[in-house]
Amino acid sequence: MALQKLLKVTDLSSENFEAELQERINSQLNSYLNLNSQIEEAIKFALTAPGKRVRPTLIYLVGDIYNVSLERLDSLALASEIIHTYSLVHDDLPCMDDDDLRRGQPTLHKKYSESTAVLAGDAMQSLAIQIILEDINLSDELKVSIVKLLMKNIGYEGMILGQAQDISFEQKTVNKQEIIQMNYLKTGLLIEFCILAPLIIANKLDDEWNIISRNIGIAFQLIDDLLDLEESKESLGKATNKDHSKNKKNLPLILGRLETINEVKKLHDKTMESFSKLSLNNHPLMIYVENLFNRRN
Amino acid sequence: MALQKLLKVTDLSSENFEAELQERINSQLNSYLNLNSQIEEAIKFALTAPGKRVRPTLIYLVGDIYNVSLERLDSLALASEIIHTYSLVHDDLPCMDDDDLRRGQPTLHKKYSESTAVLAGDAMQSLAIQIILEDINLSDELKVSIVKLLMKNIGYEGMILGQAQDISFEQKTVNKQEIIQMNYLKTGLLIEFCILAPLIIANKLDDEWNIISRNIGIAFQLIDDLLDLEESKESLGKATNKDHSKNKKNLPLILGRLETINEVKKLHDKTMESFSKLSLNNHPLMIYVENLFNRRN
Repeated sequence: MALQKLLKVTDLSSENFEAELQERINSQLNSYLNLNSQIEEAIKFALTAPGKRVRPTLIYLVGDIYNVSLERLDSLALASEIIHTYSLVHDDLPCMDDDDLRRGQPTLHKKYSESTAVLAGDAMQSLAIQIILEDINLSDELKVSIVKLLMKNIGYEGMILGQAQDISFEQKTVNKQEIIQMNYLKTGLLIEFCILAPLIIANKLDDEWNIISRNIGIAFQLIDDLLDLEESKESLGKATNKDHSKNKKNLPLILGRLETINEVKKLHDKTMESFSKLSLNNHPLMIYVENLFNRRN
Repeated sequence: MALQKLLKVTDLSSENFEAELQERINSQLNSYLNLNSQIEEAIKFALTAPGKRVRPTLIYLVGDIYNVSLERLDSLALASEIIHTYSLVHDDLPCMDDDDLRRGQPTLHKKYSESTAVLAGDAMQSLAIQIILEDINLSDELKVSIVKLLMKNIGYEGMILGQAQDISFEQKTVNKQEIIQMNYLKTGLLIEFCILAPLIIANKLDDEWNIISRNIGIAFQLIDDLLDLEESKESLGKATNKDHSKNKKNLPLILGRLETINEVKKLHDKTMESFSKLSLNNHPLMIYVENLFNRRN
């Protein structure tokens, strides 16, 4: 069996796909809003701050595996980044994590005001949904399935519950399993959405993908927590080692750096095993996820 | 032509429809959430506080005119009240209107914490959309049309823009037209949604209804502002005459009580004229809207 048979066809240039997709999402984020009000200005400021665009990139890469065109993924990609940004804007508020710096820029409540940050976050949630529902490239049936999954994953049993747990954990003793579950809710479920939504479009959702999306989602937050512990403020563009000073609970703080690295390695190996089963060796998704596991910022 | 010919058929008891609809919406608000987390508890606390349920009641009454069954309106009714409550929870935050009392109870950030209030509001927005999208009584096409309108009306060009203007107006001089436009955005557009969404289901949206919904929406906030000026804290269940003390701008404060009452009367007369054109004399909707115009709390 030739190696070629194991490879999925890709429409993306294997050398430069990451920069190309970043450019695609950034140009859309730039073009979407005007500056008719301070709220619009604030939303645009938050959305156009330099970011890694991990969530939209995952959407494009997973869709590519099953030949879903980039055009049919644009609204999801844009929405995923808007939802992520809304969660950061609210998470940075003084009553939450109280952060002054995000993506190398002042946080929204520092740049504008607290009320503007609350309202801009609220409006970003509506905007993300509006963008998916107005997409002329998706059927109503797909739009309903996709937004239903998104609302479930970011709502009171998903991302919001994770954020609430993250704050309440400051006041109590928690174990490894509780932290991993909180991570999964807070960060994993939106990552999971980005992997599963293109599969809904391609009608290719299955158990293997459910495992992959869960493992990547959990690992992503653990890597973030490891970097928070290790990296300098300059390279991350946000305050670091803050979790420790705020009595935040995360896995590196509870289990130590080495055991967390070991956890991440296990998740990495399982993910790569799943990719092999799906014949994704050397597909841009595999390369990209490998880079996510090894990222330094 | 007999009077009977001018009347629309109604499925509602003409004597007791208001209490019956309130009971219908309250029992749903009560049954929807469990208490699996503090976030759920907080959402439930906010949703089950005694309220007038104006928005769901409008949805049921408008639907009734065109024989849309109550079952096909339940998810919209529930969603409209959840969106309204989310907007109140965020509006009451210390960085916004800083209110301690709402519907006769402590506001969410007083009862729980500021972070819980931010997160509960966020989750309520997702929940409302989820409820509409999961409704088995509506087609995907209707769900998409309805949620699209909802997102437009409550987003950065709608309700959120109105709330941002309301705050920014504290720092500047504004005229009558600017205040009416801010009212329309902040309060009117959600009321408008409640009148237009059942018409989308009935396929009966037209210019006359657009005028009605706009007029009722604007009047509703003006009546609120008049009551705020006049009524006691006990009967409204929230702090009163606060607008004046916070340098808030509203029409009674700018134009005076009598001229505002005159504005409301004009909106009332136009609305009743439209109802007559649509042969709605004595329909429960007309009775209810008449009561809204004359309400004392």
